Amino acid sequence: MPDVSAVDTIDTVACVGAGVIGGGWVAHFLARGYRVRAWDPAPDAAAKLTRLVDAAWPALTSLGLADGASRDHLTVTATLAEAVEGAGFVQESAPEDLALKQKLLADIDAVTPAGVVVASSTSGYGMTEMQVAAKTPERLVVGHPFNPPYLIPLVEVVGGKLTSPQAVEWAGAFYRHVGKTVITMADEVPGFIANRLQEALWREALHMVANGEATVEQIDTAITDGPGLRWPVQGPMLTFHLAGGEGGMAHMLDHFGPSLKSPWTRLDAPELTKKLRDAVVEGCEEEAGERTIADLVAERDRAIIAIQEAVGSARRG
Amino acid sequence: MPDVSAVDTIDTVACVGAGVIGGGWVAHFLARGYRVRAWDPAPDAAAKLTRLVDAAWPALTSLGLADGASRDHLTVTATLAEAVEGAGFVQESAPEDLALKQKLLADIDAVTPAGVVVASSTSGYGMTEMQVAAKTPERLVVGHPFNPPYLIPLVEVVGGKLTSPQAVEWAGAFYRHVGKTVITMADEVPGFIANRLQEALWREALHMVANGEATVEQIDTAITDGPGLRWPVQGPMLTFHLAGGEGGMAHMLDHFGPSLKSPWTRLDAPELTKKLRDAVVEGCEEEAGERTIADLVAERDRAIIAIQEAVGSARRG
Repeated sequence: MPDVSAVDTIDTVACVGAGVIGGGWVAHFLARGYRVRAWDPAPDAAAKLTRLVDAAWPALTSLGLADGASRDHLTVTATLAEAVEGAGFVQESAPEDLALKQKLLADIDAVTPAGVVVASSTSGYGMTEMQVAAKTPERLVVGHPFNPPYLIPLVEVVGGKLTSPQAVEWAGAFYRHVGKTVITMADEVPGFIANRLQEALWREALHMVANGEATVEQIDTAITDGPGLRWPVQGPMLTFHLAGGEGGMAHMLDHFGPSLKSPWTRLDAPELTKKLRDAVVEGCEEEAGERTIADLVAERDRAIIAIQEAVGSARRG
Repeated sequence: MPDVSAVDTIDTVACVGAGVIGGGWVAHFLARGYRVRAWDPAPDAAAKLTRLVDAAWPALTSLGLADGASRDHLTVTATLAEAVEGAGFVQESAPEDLALKQKLLADIDAVTPAGVVVASSTSGYGMTEMQVAAKTPERLVVGHPFNPPYLIPLVEVVGGKLTSPQAVEWAGAFYRHVGKTVITMADEVPGFIANRLQEALWREALHMVANGEATVEQIDTAITDGPGLRWPVQGPMLTFHLAGGEGGMAHMLDHFGPSLKSPWTRLDAPELTKKLRDAVVEGCEEEAGERTIADLVAERDRAIIAIQEAVGSARRG
């Protein structure tokens, strides 16, 4: 495996797949000053990638491009082997199809020089099930981004049973180096973390539409004008830490604990054991660090106001 | 019931309950220029309310207070009957305890002049089960806010079986008049809309902590640095409309539909029938209106960048 301390020596990245996610990665790496070599079997891949990068570029320009960053540093290649030539990292973003991913990762592995880490953007497959056909599966990791990958910082990194811990560590270090927020998971969990949370919400939303309990627009408004305004500043845990008032998460769980039995979603809750309660309370206190509840309230309030201004102004154009 | 066209004649509001939500409502109505009369049986209610309003006031001041708005327009009364004197609207925000709510709403109803609408902040009870002891249940509605009620616009409004449709309509008009985003639900659904969505996510998060699959801080980071950055600008539906690329929600459902069978959350998905698929696709198209996918992408990108700046600056203080 390559040396973690050398993540800053990479100057070329290969992106496989020209869909929304693949194109988003291309835009991200270009904006960070990398040379990007991209390949996709579709005949119109180059045109599609150009459109995707063009759509992303105004946002990336306003964020500030890295020195020397240029859309001209994209090379769309005719073959997979050409794409990985000279690349210090490979990001695969093919459609979600297990057999396709297994074969593609084996193909990438076969043509990519030893010691180069290959990450898959898969939104739900585990690397253990995807790496089965590869000859050097130890350098294959999941690097799961969020749409659009050129703006949303989160990347979830996790290896499969045959992945070397060094590859996971290297991928995490490289993604951080290119400006990402990395969550490294110790174990494979289907859907990783953020997608599991998002998927629970999404499925509940689909049930509500299917049952005529809410319209598509009511669901979106319920989030954009409701809890969605809190989530960029404080996740679900700190949000409820503040819902507990001066008593924090401990008061919240002791007061609202019984509502976990309520049919407020189709998802059954876990038993709120003392162990779980304490883990959540201590986790909130740890995350809050030196910030008191009053500090967190002030921070949240400033952020929500600024978020509303930001969204209003973005909508006006 | 009072006349919907006269919502702007109200100058005094009664708030019952001095917790985080009750105090947040007090702050909201004060900032909008109302005289607020508040009551809570706790002996330290006045001190608690003062602290809550003081914590909210900087945010409300920076947002801009209504003409004549003042913290001095709060009167904490010794009895419930005094609180509702002269009030044109009553907001109840007592602890979530069904028996307590039933009795309190009956008590409020008994002392509040006829024709004044009374709303409950309950986060999950239906008005049908809460209004059983009231003599004039037709003016009782749910008006469910989100914490903090002085900043998050959403209020979910729904009546019980004995509630008059005019009371529901009046409450929606009044909340809109005081600056809220209102979702009026035709039927009672446990947890309403936003809480069902939020609760599904929350339960999945608790399962992950209980199973050691994620830490409290990883869950918060997964949201704040991931999908949470999209949700203030586009809810779950429009978010996935854009995940489908140029094909929109139709492509998204046709491509990712099978992943509804994946164990990505403990919540089972509904059957993705053609009817449900079409309802979601058409709902997205309706919500998008004249905005093309490219317009929505540009709007989202501008908003995400501004949201990140807003959150970063709020965290720095």
